[in-house]
Amino acid sequence: MTRRIDINCDMGESFGKYTKGEDAAVMPHVTTANVAAGFHGGDPHVMRETVALAAEHGVRVGVHPGLPDRLGFGRRRIDATPAELRDYVVYQLGALRAVADRAGVEVTHVKPHGALYSMLSDSEPHARAVLDGVAAVDPDLVYLATDARLYEVAGDYPFPRVLEGYVDLDYRADGSVVIPKEKSARDPELVADRFVAVATDGEVETPEGETVAVPADSICVHGDTPNVVEILEAIHARIDGTDIELVGVDEVARAAE
Amino acid sequence: MTRRIDINCDMGESFGKYTKGEDAAVMPHVTTANVAAGFHGGDPHVMRETVALAAEHGVRVGVHPGLPDRLGFGRRRIDATPAELRDYVVYQLGALRAVADRAGVEVTHVKPHGALYSMLSDSEPHARAVLDGVAAVDPDLVYLATDARLYEVAGDYPFPRVLEGYVDLDYRADGSVVIPKEKSARDPELVADRFVAVATDGEVETPEGETVAVPADSICVHGDTPNVVEILEAIHARIDGTDIELVGVDEVARAAE
Amino acid sequence: MTRRIDINCDMGESFGKYTKGEDAAVMPHVTTANVAAGFHGGDPHVMRETVALAAEHGVRVGVHPGLPDRLGFGRRRIDATPAELRDYVVYQLGALRAVADRAGVEVTHVKPHGALYSMLSDSEPHARAVLDGVAAVDPDLVYLATDARLYEVAGDYPFPRVLEGYVDLDYRADGSVVIPKEKSARDPELVADRFVAVATDGEVETPEGETVAVPADSICVHGDTPNVVEILEAIHARIDGTDIELVGVDEVARAAE
Amino acid sequence: MTRRIDINCDMGESFGKYTKGEDAAVMPHVTTANVAAGFHGGDPHVMRETVALAAEHGVRVGVHPGLPDRLGFGRRRIDATPAELRDYVVYQLGALRAVADRAGVEVTHVKPHGALYSMLSDSEPHARAVLDGVAAVDPDLVYLATDARLYEVAGDYPFPRVLEGYVDLDYRADGSVVIPKEKSARDPELVADRFVAVATDGEVETPEGETVAVPADSICVHGDTPNVVEILEAIHARIDGTDIELVGVDEVARAAE
Repeated sequence: MTRRIDINCDMGESFGKYTKGEDAAVMPHVTTANVAAGFHGGDPHVMRETVALAAEHGVRVGVHPGLPDRLGFGRRRIDATPAELRDYVVYQLGALRAVADRAGVEVTHVKPHGALYSMLSDSEPHARAVLDGVAAVDPDLVYLATDARLYEVAGDYPFPRVLEGYVDLDYRADGSVVIPKEKSARDPELVADRFVAVATDGEVETPEGETVAVPADSICVHGDTPNVVEILEAIHARIDGTDIELVGVDEVARAAE
Repeated sequence: MTRRIDINCDMGESFGKYTKGEDAAVMPHVTTANVAAGFHGGDPHVMRETVALAAEHGVRVGVHPGLPDRLGFGRRRIDATPAELRDYVVYQLGALRAVADRAGVEVTHVKPHGALYSMLSDSEPHARAVLDGVAAVDPDLVYLATDARLYEVAGDYPFPRVLEGYVDLDYRADGSVVIPKEKSARDPELVADRFVAVATDGEVETPEGETVAVPADSICVHGDTPNVVEILEAIHARIDGTDIELVGVDEVARAAE
Repeated sequence: MTRRIDINCDMGESFGKYTKGEDAAVMPHVTTANVAAGFHGGDPHVMRETVALAAEHGVRVGVHPGLPDRLGFGRRRIDATPAELRDYVVYQLGALRAVADRAGVEVTHVKPHGALYSMLSDSEPHARAVLDGVAAVDPDLVYLATDARLYEVAGDYPFPRVLEGYVDLDYRADGSVVIPKEKSARDPELVADRFVAVATDGEVETPEGETVAVPADSICVHGDTPNVVEILEAIHARIDGTDIELVGVDEVARAAE
Repeated sequence: MTRRIDINCDMGESFGKYTKGEDAAVMPHVTTANVAAGFHGGDPHVMRETVALAAEHGVRVGVHPGLPDRLGFGRRRIDATPAELRDYVVYQLGALRAVADRAGVEVTHVKPHGALYSMLSDSEPHARAVLDGVAAVDPDLVYLATDARLYEVAGDYPFPRVLEGYVDLDYRADGSVVIPKEKSARDPELVADRFVAVATDGEVETPEGETVAVPADSICVHGDTPNVVEILEAIHARIDGTDIELVGVDEVARAAE
């Protein structure tokens, strides 16, 4: 039986004359793009270009909303209320939808960025406010959840949900993920091994050799890993000819229903 | 025969802890609100509150996009390309649409703000880029035109268009409008006279007594005129019992078709 | 013997076309102005005008640095490092110094704003980083401390320090201050009573009638209290002819040495 | 006789997590750094790091103020008044001075960036407003002029002035400079030839072989030229052992007096 899985990547985080990431090189190798919407990264022009690039490669487009802190790249918590976070997400979702509408592209999902994501994960009132806002705008959007807690909360809402996992970062035995200060190059074959392990068995090995359950239908690949393209090529090579099929986040969501 | 005419006003230009205008006092007296969308004024929270206030009073909601210059309140030209202006308008239109979607309110129209409007009026390539962008997102939006030049260009596009006129500012004999540095209180009865003259005869008198054609189906009232509420009450009192009926910008657009 | 005391007020928090506070009405009645420097409030033009207004009335000028969060008016904590806060304060201090230099005015003091102040009060590493930064730029600046904790930490640094107290807010028996969500008008005579009590006896009464020590040499008056001018006039009337003398924050600092 | 000449480069234009230029690689090869001050590029942290890097290499530090348009990187004209531009420059100058004060480094000069520079060059009232502002803050700063027009206006002010020239861009026969849309790699030996020609004879050859007078005492090298480090090494190699000596912008200014 075919196992369908998604590869998602944060995209469109450049700003004005500032370039971040190698979107043009990464896009051909992923199935789903989380597009920054002008708060932590991105701007109206970068959004347009990113949506066009995704469309060119048949990659799904979703919104990757962040906190209004460009200086901190949305990675610093701000002591904001649930309603404030909801308003930020609704605004950014709408902005991306219009950019996508103009390009004839559908916005399929939402995945919060950085400290916004952490705040939602840590506070259910904040999470529910944001999910309420998203559901009111478009109940058919897929919610792409970064951790099990948010995945569970999203279960109370009408929209489909997908849990993501990681193969270019290390898991700890307790299921948490080691977030390095600076991304460094990873062994492409090790990453490909993990990709197959998640896709096939829903688990990965920690660096210490313990097995951790990773019940993910989407793998998040980090565009700022120095050898990200090489990693993606290794994954593609590894699954070529197997019954693992790469599909967009909306397809794995539908398959899960 | 009933003459239907719209009263529009720029709204939602407050920002964070900064209040601008008296939206709550003005809203009950107008039929159409042009809502700032977070570039020159407004923010995601103010947008939500402004849309809710408009909905409460049955007032039409449109987007009032501006240049990305909050410090200058969108009143200073920026040497931006047509594509840049288009991207700014598409982004802001989308942001407001999502805010309105969440509130179950329809976005009916678009009316550019300040220097953005002036740039479109002065440069047809800029105007066409913006109109192309709007049409690609929503060809049913009404384009609320501030001057005859933009009204004419908008005629090449699918969306309905409405031309606005002024009764709280003075016209010159050549049809141009005197923009004061600081708004001052106006005689409410004079303003009401002009309102009736535009609605009935499509013309107003200049302060010098010359007659100027003002073929407008919407009257823009300025919320920063010190006695704006008194002015609006005078207009309402004057037309009460006449065959002049106040309706939203979408209805005058449909009537004109 | 003459008792010298300072009245300080936050000023220059307007931004672009957005006005906040009634600086022109308040300035004649205070001795020290804490001037916003373009992060939470203020901008280069407002700073120039505020410094000029202070100079006109012989009012001392200090910097009132805030967090880089104009949308939240600097009232929301941001998860920033000590070094980040230090860099923000140094930047804003320098900006105000140049504006003041241009006007031939001296910058006498520093008083952090809103959530920046709270973060310094709650975290000694953050407080020390900021104080280190200020001391490296100008060790002669007065540090105007909002609470006893920061006053104490500032004692390890070369610059003079002054502790402020409140008379338009209520104290609790434990010495903490009740911060209302919205400022409302206060009884001018009650406020004047408290002013004299702090100046004369270093104490105030809580609304419940308990006495709290307030060993302050500067009284912070809030410009957003609706009847702030009336309050200030009541204070001036009350101390007229007494041996309480109003002087700038630098003079009370020198007197304390 | 020794010919003293300066090499200046724009630096510190990174922002938050966005990196621009290769400041660490370029700094060892120049004598003067024009440091962005948080408007078009740079931020309080980047400014601190850039000043520290300059200090480490004995490089002069000056302010490189820009328009408040980070999205456009300060390269788009904004219809601002002379007083507005002056206030922007004073603010940025002060911010950098405090950052430099903290590091024990002197701010030696000012060189406007991008569209701010163009606006000053095109409008004498704007130029004079900015020069008035700079002179009021620090009349000893060197004004590093990008063209002869501003160099001449600066002659009416107390501060020393230096005119810069280019060797990694092409001159036209009329003395104007060809500004490419995208910088491309230049032949290091050609650039070194030109450097010696400016330093020795005060002239360069156009690509067409005509000779143009370039009476410059400072050479601006562009950090975004792809092979900028190679170019700088070629210049250093070429002048090694000659009587051309590289010195900071303040020294060439003093020598010119």
